[in-house]
Amino acid sequence: MTVIGVVGGGQLARMMIPGAINLGITLRVFAQSPDDCAAPAITAVGDFRSAEDLMAFCEGLDVLTFDHEHVPVAVLEALEASGVSVYPRSAALALTHDKTVMRAALAQLDIPQPRWAVLGASRNPEEVLQQVGGFPCVAKLPIGGYDGKGVRVIESFADIEDWMALGDVLLEERVNFVRELAQLGARRPGGSWVSWDAVETVQANGVCSEVIAPAVGLTEAMRADAARIGSRIAHDIDVVGILAVELFETADGVLLVNELAMRPHNSGHVFTELSVTSQFEQHLRAVSDFPLGATTLRAAHGVMVNIFGGVDPDAARSVADNYPAIKIHSYDKSPRPGRKAGHLVASGSQIEFVLQDARDAGARMNTGRYDG
Amino acid sequence: MTVIGVVGGGQLARMMIPGAINLGITLRVFAQSPDDCAAPAITAVGDFRSAEDLMAFCEGLDVLTFDHEHVPVAVLEALEASGVSVYPRSAALALTHDKTVMRAALAQLDIPQPRWAVLGASRNPEEVLQQVGGFPCVAKLPIGGYDGKGVRVIESFADIEDWMALGDVLLEERVNFVRELAQLGARRPGGSWVSWDAVETVQANGVCSEVIAPAVGLTEAMRADAARIGSRIAHDIDVVGILAVELFETADGVLLVNELAMRPHNSGHVFTELSVTSQFEQHLRAVSDFPLGATTLRAAHGVMVNIFGGVDPDAARSVADNYPAIKIHSYDKSPRPGRKAGHLVASGSQIEFVLQDARDAGARMNTGRYDG
Repeated sequence: MTVIGVVGGGQLARMMIPGAINLGITLRVFAQSPDDCAAPAITAVGDFRSAEDLMAFCEGLDVLTFDHEHVPVAVLEALEASGVSVYPRSAALALTHDKTVMRAALAQLDIPQPRWAVLGASRNPEEVLQQVGGFPCVAKLPIGGYDGKGVRVIESFADIEDWMALGDVLLEERVNFVRELAQLGARRPGGSWVSWDAVETVQANGVCSEVIAPAVGLTEAMRADAARIGSRIAHDIDVVGILAVELFETADGVLLVNELAMRPHNSGHVFTELSVTSQFEQHLRAVSDFPLGATTLRAAHGVMVNIFGGVDPDAARSVADNYPAIKIHSYDKSPRPGRKAGHLVASGSQIEFVLQDARDAGARMNTGRYDG
Repeated sequence: MTVIGVVGGGQLARMMIPGAINLGITLRVFAQSPDDCAAPAITAVGDFRSAEDLMAFCEGLDVLTFDHEHVPVAVLEALEASGVSVYPRSAALALTHDKTVMRAALAQLDIPQPRWAVLGASRNPEEVLQQVGGFPCVAKLPIGGYDGKGVRVIESFADIEDWMALGDVLLEERVNFVRELAQLGARRPGGSWVSWDAVETVQANGVCSEVIAPAVGLTEAMRADAARIGSRIAHDIDVVGILAVELFETADGVLLVNELAMRPHNSGHVFTELSVTSQFEQHLRAVSDFPLGATTLRAAHGVMVNIFGGVDPDAARSVADNYPAIKIHSYDKSPRPGRKAGHLVASGSQIEFVLQDARDAGARMNTGRYDG
């Protein structure tokens, strides 16, 4: 039986458990704490920055994969050098570690993206600013940001004085987008790639709050364009596992790459119910080089709503009572303001009803009781 | 968070894990061996006949439920007397422990069933035989049989001399049925009941080999009849959790109850893919008194085929390659002739294609390589 190790014990590792159970894969999770929400699969607790801790964890694994992108590249390279199958590989993952490296790699592939430039000690700030079209623009810390952290829309350099003192800052054109999309797919080590149709993602305060799958009203040309961008990045960067490409859709129908993730992604949670194969099962298939599952949709439309703070048991009961076809996922986390504590998915044949049900159920769950 | 304990570490407990992960339920399994196939959820190993072992396991549980029906009624009663929430309750489970008790209870409810009588020391065998219509008839050991074990079609009393020496034997009319069906549903402690449409079950050597859902060509009257039988038994016997009623369909369209099970059942595996709510998730919802999920079907037809002996990795790869929409479930058991090692499910809109795909995939898996 295949044994897959996952670094990180968050909800993404947790949601890999059902796929592993079905496929007969043994899943072992390396977590920071035994109480992390992937608890049922945690077999080791340690520091993901430590090559020694991870090397010990890799004993007996067929493949090592990830719930997050924070393992240092040098550690990944050491594991690979010692013969561990690491998927996605360190060379691909390196792009998600440093947004300037990612921008440079996409530029080399000629993938459409916002104008960008790096603000550093040796550069003239005004020249850099000109490259991205002036203020307002978007400033990003190259390393370590997520869920809106490490990203600021700035009106002057005074807004990022603290960051500039630390080192390089990535500046990006502020794209006048009409909405955000995400293109997901999965790739096996040999190259086979299967994708889902692009979804629309809705953000609140820089964090994903809602996903509509597939994106409504996308022209066939744009659907194909999104698919092509995903496929090209996956192949040219040699991604193995799930690749999620966050995209801006501009008013004139152009798609620009915002961010990349090489693991199951919040924008793909909807596929657990909506698609024949969930992104979690697909990730396990891809990294263990097993044939990829069908991405056919089981209903015309699906909508996912994130649950923040905590999963209120009374609210969950009320949603389950009123919407027996809606699936609530609880990550079994203790409540804390703002944390992603769960999500729910509605699906059906008419988008207006699916949206209405999902939003009503989401409002019942997101009462602010745990999110003050 | 709700904590549910399951007695038994077989594939039924294993397949409860995904539902528990989604619902945010903590699942703890009491197994006979740490290597049982529900291993990812096993937290205790002991003897399910021991009230002491089970009492220790029940510490901290909200509900105790089951993967099998072998816990002695006296042990269940002792747990209930000490305040443990046992679902289904001992009084209901007792019916599945002794087939003569089950027959008597169904007779009292006037539920249609084959003619039956008990052959015991104090009874005249010829009189008992006459009650079931003479030879050939079906003989059953009242206690402990499953998957065709403890059941014999007999032509004379010589065929069950060994059983008659042990004690009572249940004799049943040999029903001239056209096919076998199963009616599944789930019931909460307060009485709410949600069912799926009846499925057809196909047996080989007394063991379920294939399930067709919903049963094809069932008249509306028979569909309603099956649903009514399930609902009446669930309510009148006060079942909590999944109830599976195995039925004979006779040539003149009458449904007769063959067996009962009060837990997820092989005939319901197909619903994991076919229905909005799997039987495993529904069982967890029911025993924890959470609103039941929708049983709407996601496709018109589903077919499940059991995999016996072991799950051959090469065969699984070939099926996954050729049928990306078919879902293979491996129970992660070491191969042994005849054991249920996994199953697969195909679904779609046209029954002839679904059947053909499921059977072809099933034939690739059941090559006899592990099945002696």
